[in-house]
Order: sequence, then structure tokens, then C-alpha cells
Amino acid sequence: MIELKQLSASQADFWSSLEEILAWEGVSDDKVTDIVKEILAEVKSRGDEAVLEYSRRFDHVTAEKMSDLEISLERAKAALENIPAEQRQALEAAAQRVRQYHDHQKQSSWSYKEEDGTLLGQQVTPLDRAGLYVPGGKAAYPSSVLMNAIPAKVAGVQELIMVVPTPNGEVNELVLAAAAVAGVDRIFAVGGAQAVAALAYGTETIPQVDKIVGPGNIFVATAKGMVFGTVGIDMIAGPSEILVICDGKTDPDWIAMDLFSQAEHDEDAQSILISPDADFLEKVKVSIAKLLPTMERKEIISTSLKNRAALIHVDDMDVAVEVANFIAAEHLELSVDEPMEMAKKIRHAGAIFLGRYTPEALGDYCAGPNHVLPTSRTARFSSPLGVYDFQKRSSLIQVSAQGAQSLGQIASVLARGESLTAHARSAEYRLKD
Amino acid sequence: MIELKQLSASQADFWSSLEEILAWEGVSDDKVTDIVKEILAEVKSRGDEAVLEYSRRFDHVTAEKMSDLEISLERAKAALENIPAEQRQALEAAAQRVRQYHDHQKQSSWSYKEEDGTLLGQQVTPLDRAGLYVPGGKAAYPSSVLMNAIPAKVAGVQELIMVVPTPNGEVNELVLAAAAVAGVDRIFAVGGAQAVAALAYGTETIPQVDKIVGPGNIFVATAKGMVFGTVGIDMIAGPSEILVICDGKTDPDWIAMDLFSQAEHDEDAQSILISPDADFLEKVKVSIAKLLPTMERKEIISTSLKNRAALIHVDDMDVAVEVANFIAAEHLELSVDEPMEMAKKIRHAGAIFLGRYTPEALGDYCAGPNHVLPTSRTARFSSPLGVYDFQKRSSLIQVSAQGAQSLGQIASVLARGESLTAHARSAEYRLKD
Repeated sequence: MIELKQLSASQADFWSSLEEILAWEGVSDDKVTDIVKEILAEVKSRGDEAVLEYSRRFDHVTAEKMSDLEISLERAKAALENIPAEQRQALEAAAQRVRQYHDHQKQSSWSYKEEDGTLLGQQVTPLDRAGLYVPGGKAAYPSSVLMNAIPAKVAGVQELIMVVPTPNGEVNELVLAAAAVAGVDRIFAVGGAQAVAALAYGTETIPQVDKIVGPGNIFVATAKGMVFGTVGIDMIAGPSEILVICDGKTDPDWIAMDLFSQAEHDEDAQSILISPDADFLEKVKVSIAKLLPTMERKEIISTSLKNRAALIHVDDMDVAVEVANFIAAEHLELSVDEPMEMAKKIRHAGAIFLGRYTPEALGDYCAGPNHVLPTSRTARFSSPLGVYDFQKRSSLIQVSAQGAQSLGQIASVLARGESLTAHARSAEYRLKD
Repeated sequence: MIELKQLSASQADFWSSLEEILAWEGVSDDKVTDIVKEILAEVKSRGDEAVLEYSRRFDHVTAEKMSDLEISLERAKAALENIPAEQRQALEAAAQRVRQYHDHQKQSSWSYKEEDGTLLGQQVTPLDRAGLYVPGGKAAYPSSVLMNAIPAKVAGVQELIMVVPTPNGEVNELVLAAAAVAGVDRIFAVGGAQAVAALAYGTETIPQVDKIVGPGNIFVATAKGMVFGTVGIDMIAGPSEILVICDGKTDPDWIAMDLFSQAEHDEDAQSILISPDADFLEKVKVSIAKLLPTMERKEIISTSLKNRAALIHVDDMDVAVEVANFIAAEHLELSVDEPMEMAKKIRHAGAIFLGRYTPEALGDYCAGPNHVLPTSRTARFSSPLGVYDFQKRSSLIQVSAQGAQSLGQIASVLARGESLTAHARSAEYRLKD
């Protein structure tokens, strides 16, 4: 039977033990940094030529020119038509729900006028162009294409450019199908740091974008970090996490499988269960032992559970909430009777799954909300990927001639207090006497 | 007479010349990086002790223990009472307007219910605790305290902690007064990378925050970049910029002073004027020559203008708008007859100042909108600092037993398509048959 860490919130060293279990440091490897730096510099200065060279070297593609690496939308549409009908329907149904949900996130320009005619507000506009990185090969997730692309298109991004490596020419049909469903505008079969560089700086063939989103390996993440400022980027994600709070009245098999669904992502994924019912924690352990041998990804799941999982006993649900707010989990499942009451007390979580019929898996694919969520306690200060990540605001300030009199006085005093006299005089010019 | 770069949008190499003028690379200095790395590590492991040591070494403070470096709110309130009445009134009037404007930015939780009872939405919550970095000594700007602190308090941040270095014990009374007006909760007289580290990791005396905002020197900026992920940070700003589009009908002295108000910030600040009226450009040059000798900061202004300013002649206003969208300026002044019509065509700008009575200086201090704005063309993908930077969202997903049937089917198909069978089985458990 697999050894799981067990904690009780009433033990003396509980909070420090919890902190130890949660601790996660992304690897920052000087060697990776150096390689990525070089790739960025080469692509910046040599464009297509450099991208092609790296794609030949790392992905073993045989293309002779960059345009050979563009995958046409016709090709993506053909993929959509050729996958099994069941998959096509599932993709389309998921996309529709995701689109519908994200429509609620659109932000609008606003303004108000003051008595003297001064107008203040914000003008909301979409990004012109966004880049979507999609990992290649086996770890390619069509659902990730939907979740990253749809908010951009809902925001009104005019051109959405997807890059996806095709190691040895291998293309994932489901990923192409998802791109067609999501409304991606152009697709290039490039990956790695060279793809990030191409999107950030632009090449002869690949247009420069304003923001790059989507998951990738350490080279991709490092490259994104380095081009940040030249373009926008999304959060760089740590390992995925689930925290389940259960009152003990959900089928322990269900809860075990929910924990597995996180653990199967990778060895570093974290699954934590909190319950005030000590017997229930035992029952879930039994379910884990029973179900684990039946899982396709049992090696990954058992490593993940052994290294990073925990079962936490609490005295009552108030303590459970306190622990949940400390953990600020990416996914928080409230498998309890009155989940909405409990959700109101949650201050930090990427996504909250309420009730016994809302396993995280539904949110990952098709409930509607985004599955790109803040990890590693960053839900304390950040949000799920959304339409708002593809819109930005410009302040609007139209001061009337009358308004300039009162505001000019205030600005003049404050500017002189900061010894910025050009500011002061610029305001004073607008004063009438 | 000062030499200014002049361009015409109709010249063959216009866009590449413009790109050259705009080019800006932040200095990334390995030596600074190493120093900051060490400071972060020391403060992380030794807390107060390390912060004290660095404060003694870099700021020559004489404090013997960390608590001596806390500045009480009473002390800040006393500063507010002791500054000249005119300054106090100006600070309070500015704060009130900034608060009023930012109230409009508050985002609320939302949700909707589907026919089968499934509920979807987002819960919006404030950050628990934020840190505000304020530069010390001469470059201390009380207006910056208001602009960074007020959005946090409007968002509902419970505890706002300000850090400000006091080199040789020197305290800026206006900064303390602004802190009192803005509702800062605690103030520590520490600065530099050690202050950023203390806020990011927490020490025995300084509480850990969830996000750090506010401007600082290269050590502060580097430290913020390094702690990003452990805490949130605001954008790291480049030099300040103004772009003025004028139809030629504004007093050229006014426009010259508006350009100065940017140039006086520092030698790297950028001031650009676009007009379809070539004569007007000449008139502004004359105004610049006439007014420059009268300016307190004439050395800074003339260096900034010489190095980074440009006068751009365009054939018509459509070209002016095109150039403005390329520049994506931090401050964009539309000194024209129908500024709102023109603003609607602006896709990228930090703040848009409309009409002849809206010099940038009014927005910097008291119009209401924030003066922390995206620089260096980052307005293509980012927004002014706002209440939204101190709020974050958690997805809400409550699937009904009925909803779990249809969603479970879709999730199961997609999960199996991605070979994530624990996800599939977790969804399938909720299916009734």
C-alpha cells in the first residue's frame, strides 16, 4: 500500500509541515538560460533562417524554407473532418461552452462626465495579435488549444498565431482539429525557444505578436520569461495541484479518482485531501489502494502521490477553510453539502469546484471556465486566464476649460512640491485669470 | 539652439528611423544581478538581521533593531498636519479625485445558472496584503504614493505596507503626508533590494505581502523581477514618454511646455510631437528655444530632448493616428479640435489626454486616472495600474447532478483523447445509468 503523508491541523508543527509539503521551486538552470539566450539572439538577428536551422536540429524537420512549416487552415479543417465524429462533437460542444462562459468576461469602455464638463474613463481595446504556444508530440492537449485560443478570439484579437513543434514531422490531428474549432488564424510547425523568439521579434514569415500564451517545457518557459517586456506573456505555471475538501459523505472512490486525476499529470503534481472525518480519510486510502492498480498511468500517479500528496485531518470546516486559504490551490473541490456557503469564505483559489457532481475533470474540458489557472500559491494574487488577458485599457482624460482651472491649481501645487516645474507651468498655462 | 530630430512620415525610411528613435533596452547588468541575488538570499534566511545590516550599510541608518525602523501612522499624520495648508489641501483634493475615479474600476463577482441548474461564474476577491515601494531622498514623489496606494485600498486590500528608504535618516515629509492621506497601514524606513526581499519573504517584523508595486532604481527593479512568482509585481517601467498630436492650433508655448514636462523627468525620457502643420513644428521649435533657458531643470530637459525627442511631420491626421498606434505611447496628448473622434481610432496608449486643456500634468497629479502607465510600447498589451491589479478572480463551477451527465460524456471523450484516463473515470463516476 502506498505511503501517503498524513497531517492533523491540531498538531503543533502543522503549519510548518504544510509549508514544507507545498514548497516548490522551479528549476533555474544556467545552462538552459545560456542556450535560450543564444537562440533568442540568433532568431532576432537572422529571422527565418535561424528558426529553420533550430527546427532542423531539434525537431528533425526536413523543411527547406520557412513557408514549408506553415500549416494551412485547410489542413486543420481537414483534421477536424477526419477525426471520429464523437471527438469532433465533443470538441465543438466544449468550445461552445467555453466561448459562452468567456463572453461574460468581456470588459467594456466606460466614462463619466463631471459637472464642469470634464470627462474621465477608460477605453478598452483588444490586443492586435497574439501567439499561442502548443507543446508537440505526446503531451499535446487539444483542450489546451481551446482554453488558450477562445479567450483571445472572444476579446477580439484580430490575428491568433499558433506554433506547435512537429518532432520528426509528427502532427497531432486532435490539436489541429482543436485549432480549427477555436478559430486560430495561422499555424506554424515550429516549437521550442525558437518559436517563442519568432513570435516575440517577428521573422520574415512569422508575424510579431503582442502577447504569447500557452504551456511549454523549460526552454519555452525560460524563453517566455526573457521576452517578457517586448511582448506580454501569461503566468509561467508550476506543477498542477488539487485540494479536495470533503465532509466524508462523498463516495471515497470518487474522491480517490479526483485525486488521481491531478496526480496523473506528472510526478510533481500535488493532490491534497482535507476532511474532518478521520474514518473517511481511511476509506479514501483504501480506495486509492484498490483503484491504483487499475490505472493506465499508475507509475506517474503513485510517484506523485508518494512525493507530494497529503491527507489532512481537521477539527471542523472552519479550519478546513483556513487551510484552503493558506494553500491557495489551483483547483479546489468542495465536496460538501452547502458548497456555495463555503465558497464565500474562500479568499484564494484558481477555480472552485462546488458539490459532489463537480469533479475537476469537468472544468478541465468543458464546463466553460478556463483550465489555465494560477499554481504554486499564486492564486493569492493572480487569476485564471481570461478574456481580460487579451484586452487592455487606455485612460481617457478630457479636462474642460473650466475644469482646467481647479485641476491646474492642484497640479501646480503638487508639481512644485516635487520640484517638477515644467509640469507646474504646463498646468498653469491653462489657467485663465 | 537645441538640435531636435525631425522626421517626415512620407520619407522612405520613416518607419525604420522611428523604430530607431523608440528603441530602448533596459540595462541588465550581471553585477547588479549578483548583488541582488545575495541580498535576497540573506534576507530570506536571516530576516530582520539582514535587513538591518543592509540598511546600515547602504542608507547609513543608525537603528539598532528593526522596530526602530517602523514609522508610526501618528508620525505620518503629524507630517500631514505640519505641511503648508496649500499642500495639504492639494494632496487631499487629488486623493479624493483619484479615489472617485478608481471606484469605477472595482470588479464584482458574477455568475449565471443554466437550465439544468449548473452554476458558472467568477468570484472576485482583493489581495490580502500589498507592499508599496517608494523611492527615498530627492526623487521621492508624494503623487506616486497616492497613485499606488489608493487603487489597493479601493480594491479592499486589508493591509498596505509602505517601504521607503531614509538615507542618513532623511525623511520626506510630503511622502509621509501622502501615506497618511492614502490610507497606508504600516510604514518601514527601509529601501533597496532588502526592502523588496523583506516584503516578498516576510521577516520577524515586516509581514509578507502578496504583491509589490511602486517604482525604484535598478536594484529595486531587479529584485522585483526576481521575486516575481513568490509575489505579484507591477510592470517594470522604462523611461517616461509623451506623444503629442497637434493640429497646429494650440499655442506653441503650451505644447513646448508639455514636451518639457516629460523631458524634465530624466535624461532618457522621450518627447515626440506629431503635426500635419510644418509651420507649427517650426513655431514649437522657437518656443522650445525661448523657454528652455527659463527652466529650472534645463540641463535634464535639453539632454533628454537632444537624445530622444522628435518632431514628426505627417500628411494628415490618419497618418498621425497610424504613427501613434505604432508608438503605443505611455502618454498621448490629442491637442486637436475633435479629440474624442480621434481617440476612438487609438488602439494603443497608456493614457489619452484629450483637447487643448488637458496637459499631461493634470493627469499626473489630480485628474483622477492613474499615472502609473505602461511604457516602451507595452501599451500594446498592458494597462494603467488600477483596482483590477489588486483584485483577482476564482472560477466558480457548480455542476448539477443532471448537468454532470452531459458534461461527463464530453469530458470523458476529450480526456480519453488525451490519454488522461483518471480524468475520464472521475467524470464517468458521476454518470448515472
